[in-house]
Amino acid sequence: MFTLTSPPLSLTVSCSLWPSVSFSGLSAAKLLKEKGLSPVVLEARDRVGGRTFTVQNEQTKYVDLGGAYVGPTQNRILRLAKECGVKTYKVNEEERLVHYVKGKSYPFKGSFPPMWNPFALMDYNNLWRKMDEMGSEIPREAPWKAPHAEEWDKMTMKQLFDKICWTSSARRFATLFVNVNVTSEPHEVSALWFLWYVKQCGGTMRIFSTTNGGQERKFLGGSSQISECMAKELGERVKMESPVYKIDQTGDMVEVETLNKETYKAKYVIVATPPGLNLKMHFNPELPPLRNQLIHRVPMGSVIKCIVYYRENFWRKKGYCGTMVIEEEEAPIGLTLDDTKPDGTVPAIMGSTHNFSFLTNPQPSLSQPVHYEEKNWCEEEYSGGCYTAYFPPGILTQYGKVLREPVGRLYFAGTETATEWSGYMEGAVQAGERAAREVRPFIIIIIHEVPALPFVTTFWERNLPSVGGFINFLGVASVLSVATAAGMLAYQKGLLTRS
Amino acid sequence: MFTLTSPPLSLTVSCSLWPSVSFSGLSAAKLLKEKGLSPVVLEARDRVGGRTFTVQNEQTKYVDLGGAYVGPTQNRILRLAKECGVKTYKVNEEERLVHYVKGKSYPFKGSFPPMWNPFALMDYNNLWRKMDEMGSEIPREAPWKAPHAEEWDKMTMKQLFDKICWTSSARRFATLFVNVNVTSEPHEVSALWFLWYVKQCGGTMRIFSTTNGGQERKFLGGSSQISECMAKELGERVKMESPVYKIDQTGDMVEVETLNKETYKAKYVIVATPPGLNLKMHFNPELPPLRNQLIHRVPMGSVIKCIVYYRENFWRKKGYCGTMVIEEEEAPIGLTLDDTKPDGTVPAIMGSTHNFSFLTNPQPSLSQPVHYEEKNWCEEEYSGGCYTAYFPPGILTQYGKVLREPVGRLYFAGTETATEWSGYMEGAVQAGERAAREVRPFIIIIIHEVPALPFVTTFWERNLPSVGGFINFLGVASVLSVATAAGMLAYQKGLLTRS
Repeated sequence: MFTLTSPPLSLTVSCSLWPSVSFSGLSAAKLLKEKGLSPVVLEARDRVGGRTFTVQNEQTKYVDLGGAYVGPTQNRILRLAKECGVKTYKVNEEERLVHYVKGKSYPFKGSFPPMWNPFALMDYNNLWRKMDEMGSEIPREAPWKAPHAEEWDKMTMKQLFDKICWTSSARRFATLFVNVNVTSEPHEVSALWFLWYVKQCGGTMRIFSTTNGGQERKFLGGSSQISECMAKELGERVKMESPVYKIDQTGDMVEVETLNKETYKAKYVIVATPPGLNLKMHFNPELPPLRNQLIHRVPMGSVIKCIVYYRENFWRKKGYCGTMVIEEEEAPIGLTLDDTKPDGTVPAIMGSTHNFSFLTNPQPSLSQPVHYEEKNWCEEEYSGGCYTAYFPPGILTQYGKVLREPVGRLYFAGTETATEWSGYMEGAVQAGERAAREVRPFIIIIIHEVPALPFVTTFWERNLPSVGGFINFLGVASVLSVATAAGMLAYQKGLLTRS
Repeated sequence: MFTLTSPPLSLTVSCSLWPSVSFSGLSAAKLLKEKGLSPVVLEARDRVGGRTFTVQNEQTKYVDLGGAYVGPTQNRILRLAKECGVKTYKVNEEERLVHYVKGKSYPFKGSFPPMWNPFALMDYNNLWRKMDEMGSEIPREAPWKAPHAEEWDKMTMKQLFDKICWTSSARRFATLFVNVNVTSEPHEVSALWFLWYVKQCGGTMRIFSTTNGGQERKFLGGSSQISECMAKELGERVKMESPVYKIDQTGDMVEVETLNKETYKAKYVIVATPPGLNLKMHFNPELPPLRNQLIHRVPMGSVIKCIVYYRENFWRKKGYCGTMVIEEEEAPIGLTLDDTKPDGTVPAIMGSTHNFSFLTNPQPSLSQPVHYEEKNWCEEEYSGGCYTAYFPPGILTQYGKVLREPVGRLYFAGTETATEWSGYMEGAVQAGERAAREVRPFIIIIIHEVPALPFVTTFWERNLPSVGGFINFLGVASVLSVATAAGMLAYQKGLLTRS
């Protein structure tokens, strides 16, 4: 048992956790220290970084087994990286991407695979447009206040896709879009929540793109460097292997007990775990009813991150960048990216799976790998899964409003409480700094760190009818005869860029 | 810190919890003790009973603020009650029930309110028949093995109702049916899970009925007496106010630490909390990935139990038994039951609500109550909610199979792991005794304690077409003219028993 003789003014509880919590807790503590307060960070693990986890070894030099990607509009995490002297590099997307569907590979350029079939084209176009339109109605800070919040929250994304999509190819790609972005299934997540999630990342193009999107860059040397840098700055204030199991607010100071039998006292506590991991702590007094129930209702996604290493970068030689969008019923991996180091050394391909059968049916070896790295985030007690918490139907409207509502002297951070890039390292920093400001109000100035280009939509993307609209317009009888002509037209207009 | 000098052979961890966990943990311990082992029960609260909670005071004599009802086919809990000398009495259903809909009251007799409208009649009849038919395909022990498991698990009950029900009145009643039985919303729960839940209680009639169903009886003196009786038998083996926060399986003995700074060592541990409350414990080694994620995915329902007391039993004088089925958009309460003592003293009406706006908009006072009792189970840290855990879409097929799978020397009890009356006191006992048998195999003989009558369906209930079937049969054009005739026919056959 250990009591601080000079109790810190403020204390940050970080249970650490993939693009997030260690970031959230550390960035809160960093800011509080800069403002003259005395934070202590209680880290559950024997390392900082949480849901980011950079491993160094001979075969890989270094590899990010957790959160790794950053992109334009993620200015907070980029600012921190700059402060720590950590540089970014662009993920390779020079060559052509590959769309692998029904056993065949189709090379392409751009964010989304193009479509030959004119119905599929209209349907894809309508899918992205519709999701972004619906997203535009949802307030970032309070999605439960959207005009159709109740209706959309009672629906799963699967239901919404079944409603919007006319073609099986659009439905299949929509499923992959959910799998890749939130490591869960369309039938598991509330439509309101997922539409909000995409919106607060800047829309369908921003969230899914490599170039100009969420996967544009990685950190040279790995993402954990940033939390390590913050931890270094905080020095003795960061207590490792200190999982919190008890928070008592009944006295003058908040008392916090850790598994390694130490007791800390503080004026304020910032709980920087995913909401569901609040359950690892016993609270006195009990949490209010809504929060007590919320934390049982927001599970973490499921993901195993895999990186396969090769002797040479054979895909680039063949004119492919390494990005593969894989649509196969039982494919363990939906999206791959080139994970070769920026100087061209250590050729590697990264993929994530949230298909549990993957572990027992290992991925068919692509050519002759020389090394393999894997991290199953589902087994981590202090993450509960990755990347982020998802909201099943009905939860966001009923419980969302207490997500970051303080409880006495407890404040809540963690990327799940963010309103910009929630679920990402960026959101973790936003949430941590917001929680710090709640404890001690001050102003943060945001500087744009890498250029964020608007996504330019074409006349056709904006005005191409949906399949439903098209059929209504023409009448069912005349559809088939017109289909080929429409396809030709789109092709001539440069909409179909199949190379 | 406290170590048992003579370590118990087996240890039961009970975090206590409404028709369940204290029952589950205690019944496991009782059985193990009878078989010559030395269990210890670690109870989080300062009382046993968990999700049952009998309070005694002048105004009520005694009142069950948690799990209270028992009925035919619940033979395990009835056996325990008998052993403890606790008697049951029948909930009053002598007089007429009331169906309150759209501001009007309709008295009736039987389990479900009758329907005047012939379409509504067909639709209701089809709803119950369909749910029971689907339930018959679902194995109690392994619902994830049902022929349509995947399909039904990807659907919410709301989706299924939208598919099955043609009339808004059937949809409204179906919603109430979910609300009342599992204190959650049709859009929140997996169709597979809810159909399984109803099935393992014996079907729609058994689960919903008072007479011959799950609400037939209460315990004279209150349900907590049974856990108190078991606790008394276990004596010093029950440790109160001992919430478990750590379970370490790395040594020869399993080590368990409690908030009151005691350490227990045991050969086996039975964790008898709802699955979600496993999260209150830190595990070494970590739980396997599927269990680690399961426990974040099965939230508890939301319910506030209310009992209103009156000077006299005015409803019986008017010819009503006190049962009201209330269908109103914003009605806080869906179902009431007479809660008067069996000797006619302490007239009272019991209702449950899982509508959160209820607390801020108190129930309009029915006549002139003289006393009021209320228990909000959503605020209980060591329950997380009541009555039971529900499965959102996608979870049962993906994670269900690890629900009661042992992890090393940890075994899992709690009503959620039961296969008969899971969610009820009966399920808690079944689960507790099953877990005890896993630790030390032996045989239990089941005796039928109160008569369970089969529900007799009429020719018409079995053969009345669904609205869809009816329309298909007749062709849409002729429907309207036939409707009135069908209504008359049903009425003459005694199907419409409106009194």
